[in-house]
Amino acid sequence: MTALHATLAQIRPVHPAWVERAAQRLDRFTKPPRSLGRLEWIAARLCAIQETLAPAASPRRIVIFAADHGVASEGVSAYPSIVTAQMVANFLRGGAAINALAEAVGAGVEVVDVGVAHHVECSGTRAAFVARRVAPGTRNIARGPAMTAAELEAALQAGEDAAHAAADAGVRLFACGDMGIGNTTAASAVTAAITRSPAARVTGPGTGIDADALARKALVITQALRVNQPGRDPLAVLRSVGGLEIAAIVGAYLGAARRRMTIVGDGFVTTAAALIAAELCPSFLDYWFAGHQSPEPGHLVQLEYLRQAPLLDLDLRLGEATGAALAMPIIAAAAAMMRGMATFEEAGVAART
Amino acid sequence: MTALHATLAQIRPVHPAWVERAAQRLDRFTKPPRSLGRLEWIAARLCAIQETLAPAASPRRIVIFAADHGVASEGVSAYPSIVTAQMVANFLRGGAAINALAEAVGAGVEVVDVGVAHHVECSGTRAAFVARRVAPGTRNIARGPAMTAAELEAALQAGEDAAHAAADAGVRLFACGDMGIGNTTAASAVTAAITRSPAARVTGPGTGIDADALARKALVITQALRVNQPGRDPLAVLRSVGGLEIAAIVGAYLGAARRRMTIVGDGFVTTAAALIAAELCPSFLDYWFAGHQSPEPGHLVQLEYLRQAPLLDLDLRLGEATGAALAMPIIAAAAAMMRGMATFEEAGVAART
Repeated sequence: MTALHATLAQIRPVHPAWVERAAQRLDRFTKPPRSLGRLEWIAARLCAIQETLAPAASPRRIVIFAADHGVASEGVSAYPSIVTAQMVANFLRGGAAINALAEAVGAGVEVVDVGVAHHVECSGTRAAFVARRVAPGTRNIARGPAMTAAELEAALQAGEDAAHAAADAGVRLFACGDMGIGNTTAASAVTAAITRSPAARVTGPGTGIDADALARKALVITQALRVNQPGRDPLAVLRSVGGLEIAAIVGAYLGAARRRMTIVGDGFVTTAAALIAAELCPSFLDYWFAGHQSPEPGHLVQLEYLRQAPLLDLDLRLGEATGAALAMPIIAAAAAMMRGMATFEEAGVAART
Repeated sequence: MTALHATLAQIRPVHPAWVERAAQRLDRFTKPPRSLGRLEWIAARLCAIQETLAPAASPRRIVIFAADHGVASEGVSAYPSIVTAQMVANFLRGGAAINALAEAVGAGVEVVDVGVAHHVECSGTRAAFVARRVAPGTRNIARGPAMTAAELEAALQAGEDAAHAAADAGVRLFACGDMGIGNTTAASAVTAAITRSPAARVTGPGTGIDADALARKALVITQALRVNQPGRDPLAVLRSVGGLEIAAIVGAYLGAARRRMTIVGDGFVTTAAALIAAELCPSFLDYWFAGHQSPEPGHLVQLEYLRQAPLLDLDLRLGEATGAALAMPIIAAAAAMMRGMATFEEAGVAART
């Protein structure tokens, strides 16, 4: 894990002096002080991340990491594993929700295969495709560890490489999405282990299973934690009960923070990756915004653990970075407000009586 | 009010069959059923408004109605009345929050003077300006009615004309904003009268007054309601304790519904106009989305009365349509999702197990 430790050492906390400078300028703009609420808080954080009072929020890129999960064989999902490969093909042809949403918010889409079990039909041109398959999915976490140490390292590196490629392309607003049948089971196991929550509290319907399947899913997660005994070491948790796409998102998140990109979080699966990233490096959270609140019960547990308030609450439970995409225009508006507004002096507007 | 009644007669409720057709198509898209939550509900409503399964969300236009309030002389605002004219000039020069936000979300800005008390310096080119000044502000509602019946009719007509101009220009997503020192006092009086709430429950700090001024503001509103005895007739309420910009927004909202534009609500002042519009014509709400939740206490009372859930909750209390602007990308994303997604059959993705 030498590469990972080098990355962790290079993530710097943002400097509070920039937040203060931004706040002072925001109070001089032609509006009552703090009347733009959380938009002002976002703007100040963007200033601190980019070390400027004129922050940028584009180019924007969404990277979806796709992988399969051995635990899907336990009947924890409403869909068969083949759907992971089929949805990757759908992303590339532009038919998925994230294609429509990313286009609407002006973000490019890239799909990275870090562990899809089936053949991927790469005929589409609506998203960039990166082949970094580490293994054809994880092993069944109900029986043993999800991946080997070498697989974990390869998945982390694939994610970090995607972040570097984005930063090299000038990307300023970055999000990760997930695709992987069975991945809310892995995310629940990770969340239970890191937040020390009972499995039942962080287990939800995912793509939409019935009550019987939900009860079975919670038992499978409990079994995975008992069999693997991951403790709370974040890399041990990730390796034993995580997923290849979750590991890649951890790498991408840490790489993005290292490169000082603004990161928009998505739902339950990506926030499981944020838990790991924040345990490895608390300053990571200086760069990460909780994009939305998912109805998946474990997502609230994650966000409370991270002490982050989501920007949106629209009852989205799809993944694919759909929630992150919808939050991007809010962050972009905060940047535009910071860059574009006039001060009271500049505009010749009278101050308070 | 012949013109108004003609408009009211032409606002048709949306047909539920379109919502049903949209819902059926949404369930065939490549995602778990209803996993896009409120975005699906927005998309179905857009389909019903536009009577198509491929709804549009652009062009987008924001019209800010500006007017002064005689009640400002009672010391209910943190800013002097001259700020209304100065902020109109700021809108035209592009230095206000709404300029930055509207540009970020791809909306044009128009400013309509329906009752500014002071000279407006029209030198800017960053927003269109429409001169429809009905009077140099309202009279002091603490002493008598805000406006005459003729002034009310002229203000309503100015608003409806702005909606027709937008519809004629092809606008599909429409929002109104407000600018007027003292206007949260009028909005509180309107809200108290329509929702039968005590003044103190619907009175808030507006642009940011201290506790003493807040107590005085509530007393002024109570006095305005006692002096005018508006009852609950919406036009009587609007004329006696409303504002010229609030009346214009009522006209614009009703005109926009008549022309089947999708309307995005903003904060406390525009939602006071929505209360009046909905009382005059309940079907108006088929076209109107609550854009955001303001911390102004009366806004929650209004939204509960209208039974509308806001799309955003970002602690914004500025007005100017800033909250509506931020909600526009969400509605646009819903439209893009409806137009762009592939069905399971089209994408060759397996259905549920």
